[in-house]
Amino acid sequence: MLKGKQSWQFENKPAILVSSSVAGPFEGKGKIANEFDIVYDELWMKEDSFEKAHRLLVEDAIQTIFTKSNKTQGDIQFLIAGDLINLMTPTNFAASTHQIPYLGIYNACATSMEGLAMASFIVNSGGAQHIITGASSHNAAAERQFRYPTEYGGQKPPTAQWTVTGAGFGLIGQSNPQMKNQPVVASSTIGRVIDMGLTDPFNMGGAMAPAAAETIYTHFEDLQLAHDYYDAIFTGDLGEIGNEVAFELLAERGFHITREKFQDCGLMIYGDDQEVQSGGSGAGCSAFVLYSHILNEMKRGIYKRVLICATGALFSPLSFQQGETIPCIAHAVAIEMLGGAE
Amino acid sequence: MLKGKQSWQFENKPAILVSSSVAGPFEGKGKIANEFDIVYDELWMKEDSFEKAHRLLVEDAIQTIFTKSNKTQGDIQFLIAGDLINLMTPTNFAASTHQIPYLGIYNACATSMEGLAMASFIVNSGGAQHIITGASSHNAAAERQFRYPTEYGGQKPPTAQWTVTGAGFGLIGQSNPQMKNQPVVASSTIGRVIDMGLTDPFNMGGAMAPAAAETIYTHFEDLQLAHDYYDAIFTGDLGEIGNEVAFELLAERGFHITREKFQDCGLMIYGDDQEVQSGGSGAGCSAFVLYSHILNEMKRGIYKRVLICATGALFSPLSFQQGETIPCIAHAVAIEMLGGAE
Repeated sequence: MLKGKQSWQFENKPAILVSSSVAGPFEGKGKIANEFDIVYDELWMKEDSFEKAHRLLVEDAIQTIFTKSNKTQGDIQFLIAGDLINLMTPTNFAASTHQIPYLGIYNACATSMEGLAMASFIVNSGGAQHIITGASSHNAAAERQFRYPTEYGGQKPPTAQWTVTGAGFGLIGQSNPQMKNQPVVASSTIGRVIDMGLTDPFNMGGAMAPAAAETIYTHFEDLQLAHDYYDAIFTGDLGEIGNEVAFELLAERGFHITREKFQDCGLMIYGDDQEVQSGGSGAGCSAFVLYSHILNEMKRGIYKRVLICATGALFSPLSFQQGETIPCIAHAVAIEMLGGAE
Repeated sequence: MLKGKQSWQFENKPAILVSSSVAGPFEGKGKIANEFDIVYDELWMKEDSFEKAHRLLVEDAIQTIFTKSNKTQGDIQFLIAGDLINLMTPTNFAASTHQIPYLGIYNACATSMEGLAMASFIVNSGGAQHIITGASSHNAAAERQFRYPTEYGGQKPPTAQWTVTGAGFGLIGQSNPQMKNQPVVASSTIGRVIDMGLTDPFNMGGAMAPAAAETIYTHFEDLQLAHDYYDAIFTGDLGEIGNEVAFELLAERGFHITREKFQDCGLMIYGDDQEVQSGGSGAGCSAFVLYSHILNEMKRGIYKRVLICATGALFSPLSFQQGETIPCIAHAVAIEMLGGAE
């Protein structure tokens, strides 16, 4: 199972049996809006706080998995999930609602792939029949915690990103070797924390890019893969600037793929007419793009093998105010269509 | 590996190869002070913020494991850890310092046993040779985040608890069947979130007791164990009141053990002359008591099999202010002396 220094190869090919995605109103006007299971038309979602709305994103995503898979909470052994809100209350409260034994995880916006790697490892090793995993974020809840209340109307530089309102979740279980067109988790690489000394919370993509490059490079080393092995590599939420930086850092280390293959989830959500500066971000970003659009593209035959590298900035408003740098991390998970590639 | 509904049995008996504990000044005057590896004589620990001092607790605990085990960061595949501070910056920054691939976890004060369960699962399944896992808390950093700055001198009711300043970490790896007197992880049970509707952050032990009772009960059901199987059951940080409530809840469900066998880590740290109301608490509480005193007692032959049930309150100051209840969780891990019992 351990491959190389810090990667896992899943010989039993755990499958993403079903997936779900829930989006906010702004995301519901974007490029992949018709691929989300649920789109809310306002940010409050009829709740009396943004944090309670955030909780609803998670509850809806889990409920949608129950519905699609025709399973109930008793069929699921573990929930592995997290979010960006202090002490993860939206996910905690959703875990209370749905009553699945709960392993809370937190690696900022890399939480999505941390969860998918862990869920796949546990299912692959016989530690569960079914695990639900995912991540989420809510624009207004994150803005007021990390920056300013949106009512302030603060101006942002072009390097800033837009925290997505959304949740993406998957049901991980054993794959069925008889079944065609089944996305399975092939491998994963858990990243080290990389801190290049950046301190600007309005340029997270730039801060996180070295962590993404490091994890992607290590993934290929650990698994001994050719550089063109994947049909596409998706960074989590580096945005335009961070994605470009990560691409160049990889090129400098002799890693060669075509530019078109190196995409970013944060650039796949919003239309050109939507003002999101450098792109979307947040723990929900890579989660709800993977668990909707990317899996759909795989089922449509566009991709047979993809690598998702989610990136997280492991700071807090307090650590920023105390003059600390922004330590970053990235975790990568490889998804392949069973019976598809080769 | 999966046993019953939500438990794991570790047939390869992953071992706690070495462990480390770091304590603050108040803990250094308590009952088990001479069992800690490092005791700081003041809360600032020569840092300029309590959060940076907290980070040092984690860095020291990991460094102590390197020293005791004669290993370096390159020998360790993963760090699985967390703490109580918003967005877990103390642990994040320590993970940056020590450069071990990092899986951040958060289940409040149940983080300690969440980490030990996950690390044991991964080592047991061949996903790593060595994992470092643990949890930590810092009294002043937690007090000002969850309640009031200590300088306010706020009065507390007798149900309140004292957040410990301390870190406890373990190095998990394969056990050596030839070796005697080796603590191994036998099994674990991951809890559901239990919310009885309590809202008083000054009575966390009472709020968390039902979660502890539920997880302990489920552990015995899942693993089909006799009620007197363990020499002792330690709740994490329920304190005097919560430990009593949990004992009674278990008795009501027909679970019979003697009162002396049902202890609490939060009651084992401080002397009778130390004013800590209902007892110690915090993510570091069960961690540094397990990774010092309890393991020592096992090596001294006092216990051959123990169950540690760490409990966590999954709320935040914001969720409390918004009028929400306190959802709670508990995870249990069984530790046995290899070649010892029977």
